[in-house]
Amino acid sequence: MAKVLTSRSESYSQWYNDLVLKADLAENSAVRGCMVIKPYGYAIWEKMQAVLDRMFKDTGHVNAYFPLFIPKSFLSKEADHVEGFAKECAVVTHYRLMNSPDGKGVVVDPQAKLEEELIVRPTSETIIWNTYKGWIQSYRDLPILCNQWANVVRWEMRTRLFLRTAEFLWQEGHTAHATQAEAMTEAMTMLKVYAKFAEEYLAVPVVQGVKTANERFAGAVETYTIEALMQDGKALQSGTSHFLGQNFAKAFDVTFTNQEGKIDHVWATSWGVSTRLMGALIMAHSDDNGLVLPPKLAPIQVVIVPIYKSMEELDKISVVAKELVAKLKAKGYDVKFDDNDKKKPGWKFAEYELKGVPVRLAIGPRDLENGTVEVARRDTLTKEVMQLDGIDERIVSLLDDIQTNIYQKALDFRAASTTKVDSYEEFQKVLDEKGGFVLAHWDGTSETEQRIKDETKATIRCIPLDNEQEAGVCMVTGQPSTQRVVFARAY
Amino acid sequence: MAKVLTSRSESYSQWYNDLVLKADLAENSAVRGCMVIKPYGYAIWEKMQAVLDRMFKDTGHVNAYFPLFIPKSFLSKEADHVEGFAKECAVVTHYRLMNSPDGKGVVVDPQAKLEEELIVRPTSETIIWNTYKGWIQSYRDLPILCNQWANVVRWEMRTRLFLRTAEFLWQEGHTAHATQAEAMTEAMTMLKVYAKFAEEYLAVPVVQGVKTANERFAGAVETYTIEALMQDGKALQSGTSHFLGQNFAKAFDVTFTNQEGKIDHVWATSWGVSTRLMGALIMAHSDDNGLVLPPKLAPIQVVIVPIYKSMEELDKISVVAKELVAKLKAKGYDVKFDDNDKKKPGWKFAEYELKGVPVRLAIGPRDLENGTVEVARRDTLTKEVMQLDGIDERIVSLLDDIQTNIYQKALDFRAASTTKVDSYEEFQKVLDEKGGFVLAHWDGTSETEQRIKDETKATIRCIPLDNEQEAGVCMVTGQPSTQRVVFARAY
Ligand SMILES: [Zn+2]
Ligand SMILES: [Zn+2]
Repeated sequence: MAKVLTSRSESYSQWYNDLVLKADLAENSAVRGCMVIKPYGYAIWEKMQAVLDRMFKDTGHVNAYFPLFIPKSFLSKEADHVEGFAKECAVVTHYRLMNSPDGKGVVVDPQAKLEEELIVRPTSETIIWNTYKGWIQSYRDLPILCNQWANVVRWEMRTRLFLRTAEFLWQEGHTAHATQAEAMTEAMTMLKVYAKFAEEYLAVPVVQGVKTANERFAGAVETYTIEALMQDGKALQSGTSHFLGQNFAKAFDVTFTNQEGKIDHVWATSWGVSTRLMGALIMAHSDDNGLVLPPKLAPIQVVIVPIYKSMEELDKISVVAKELVAKLKAKGYDVKFDDNDKKKPGWKFAEYELKGVPVRLAIGPRDLENGTVEVARRDTLTKEVMQLDGIDERIVSLLDDIQTNIYQKALDFRAASTTKVDSYEEFQKVLDEKGGFVLAHWDGTSETEQRIKDETKATIRCIPLDNEQEAGVCMVTGQPSTQRVVFARAY
Repeated sequence: MAKVLTSRSESYSQWYNDLVLKADLAENSAVRGCMVIKPYGYAIWEKMQAVLDRMFKDTGHVNAYFPLFIPKSFLSKEADHVEGFAKECAVVTHYRLMNSPDGKGVVVDPQAKLEEELIVRPTSETIIWNTYKGWIQSYRDLPILCNQWANVVRWEMRTRLFLRTAEFLWQEGHTAHATQAEAMTEAMTMLKVYAKFAEEYLAVPVVQGVKTANERFAGAVETYTIEALMQDGKALQSGTSHFLGQNFAKAFDVTFTNQEGKIDHVWATSWGVSTRLMGALIMAHSDDNGLVLPPKLAPIQVVIVPIYKSMEELDKISVVAKELVAKLKAKGYDVKFDDNDKKKPGWKFAEYELKGVPVRLAIGPRDLENGTVEVARRDTLTKEVMQLDGIDERIVSLLDDIQTNIYQKALDFRAASTTKVDSYEEFQKVLDEKGGFVLAHWDGTSETEQRIKDETKATIRCIPLDNEQEAGVCMVTGQPSTQRVVFARAY
């Protein structure tokens, strides 16, 4: 079979682009930086959404929907927020088109200029806190635990499908609390939800930690993050949870009467994951043959391909296959019996391999005679002939095995790609030759962090939660340090 | 208890506004015409989405996602489309803000002007057909059966929560077919899906029909519609399905090689329902006490309110209540046990009545002694004491009864509000005095239809499918007619 993908060793970045296109996940659109998420890609995103939405609801959250547009003046109400966010964004200035005077198409109606420009939301803290002001009078109105599933726009100059696009889909949780302690607990709870989702569903191990001031969300007091490692040794920030203190409550003057009858500003968090997770999913596990999907998020978990010469053979195979489909569907699995007569089995094998279907079954006439079925695993690319009798139970446990194996493989890769270094020279060498997470001492200053970034393109991904304390000296300045932090080049 | 809502007889329109706000469904935002959908309202929308999404998938559709923005030039590619759609819309002209020279806030960076303006999608036919061009070469690539859940923006001057807002949420299906017949079947299939959803879930009877040329979607060959009747005698268009012919394929030059090896343009449909359905749901059933929700879409289907004086009593009631909650949840129902100690039972009764919870149970100490429970129906406002033993089964059948009863009530109302008239004088009289659907003969011309609209504010809602054929004369012009059409004043 002809290779459809550039290999990872040839060009990891081209391999990624090829894979996203060939596996029908997404493509670029006519609008610069905006992607089309194709049905197969969207089906994965829908599975992610369903799991996350359940996890949010199980932790007491509800969904709501807030406006797409933000009045321009809102963005400058929180000083740090405007610095970090407001600049590269889509600005709506007019609300009407008119027929062009030359009769060719339409032009913007200059009469229909908005008094105040509207910004397409890059994130919704401002419009939401402006709304919460009307919802909160007393501690009895708290907490508010809202999430929204939405599209957001950040005008990126260099875009890559899923990883960095002008428009992307995400969820953004925005919570309001009566006390600092409660808001901090919430921010941590949601970080744990994201970490659990990444590890148990995406099968991607993550480091949980806190961002340095340089890497903090604009307007946050603390930003917590989960950081994943991709196969090329670069880090991918996969989800963030922010403790916002009273910053947005102060900016939008949201106060409440507490249990002692005193007026105080409300405490806030926000947290989000986006279609960027698709990028993490794709890059963490896939190989030169195509996608490798964790069974828990695969749109098709099991595919059955009939091998036949005559329609009689197909009919007989179909009876067995459809019975198995019914059994697996009844157990809640997504199974496809591909009896498309226009495609050959070889084509189908390659197609489902490219699309990362975890388990592929092939059933031919000899299998019917012998009561067997050929079972192929996508993760290991191994095949085995199994007894048809009881195959549904074996598939269920095989899917579990695959989920576990993919995770373990990623975990082993991360362990092998994490290096402790004690000198700046060694640091640069590891970054260039091996990549991955580099654990090093740092003096805690923004200046040193910035210098390292300028010189090596590596950033501090996070200071891990419950980080091991260890006396040392900053690899750059020699100043004392009490712990190593996680450096990496990142997406 | 103080009335929280204006009564319907006093002002139907004020009643609606009051209800949307007081039942915590939605509110206006700081952005003109854009609403905030509050958690309780959004929970209803989520239930609608889940049902519809299942129905779409069961009819072979998949979800995808297309860009929020449409290049301005795309809108003028289909001539009728631009006339009907492109004018009142949000126009993005710039992609960056900068600090204001006077140091106060941010201003639009004049350097960051887009070469071509982007329109926030008012509907996505153009961007989607531009995308489909790349997906379709041969009949083997057809049909394409995509749906997207998205936000859209139409700059409305006069807005009303859910019924007409600048930004709203909807789904839009866009399908591509090899033959005219297949596309027409698809348009009809989706109309039937919408009608089934309206009648079986919203509990709102609808007339299915075809729109006249005047009322057709801009760019469609035929527009099919479901039309519902509200309690004030006005019609609400609740969903539309369009047969688009080859209009968009021609505008975007989307051709394919058919089975005979010849090149042809692709056939298209599109279909959508929106958060407007929330308006239909609210207006069709609710009363002066608040919402009346059909059980199949109620976020809380059953609420249990404990009546107690001491904590010991509450503890005993809780044991019984929680057992019942578990039983009903296991059957898939959404049940809430409201043991909030800060609110009195009377307050809770009023609150759940306002919010339209279909079944309310009250359990007090005497009920525990007698093995009983008080069961209140929201739709009839009746109460009954029932045996606690086997109550879960009775609640299940009660919820079915309520769903059926609400639908039957709406159906009876519609029957009583549908009038056949044979003169224009009678027509105007019925419209002014009774409202509702008015069935009359019409000469089939756009001119007469427009005149009627100008003079009476009534439009032809549709020509019903399988309409009874009957010789008659147009009530306005006296020209011959073969059937009555459905007129009404509409939202
Ligand atoms: Zn304040
Ligand atoms: Zn053409």
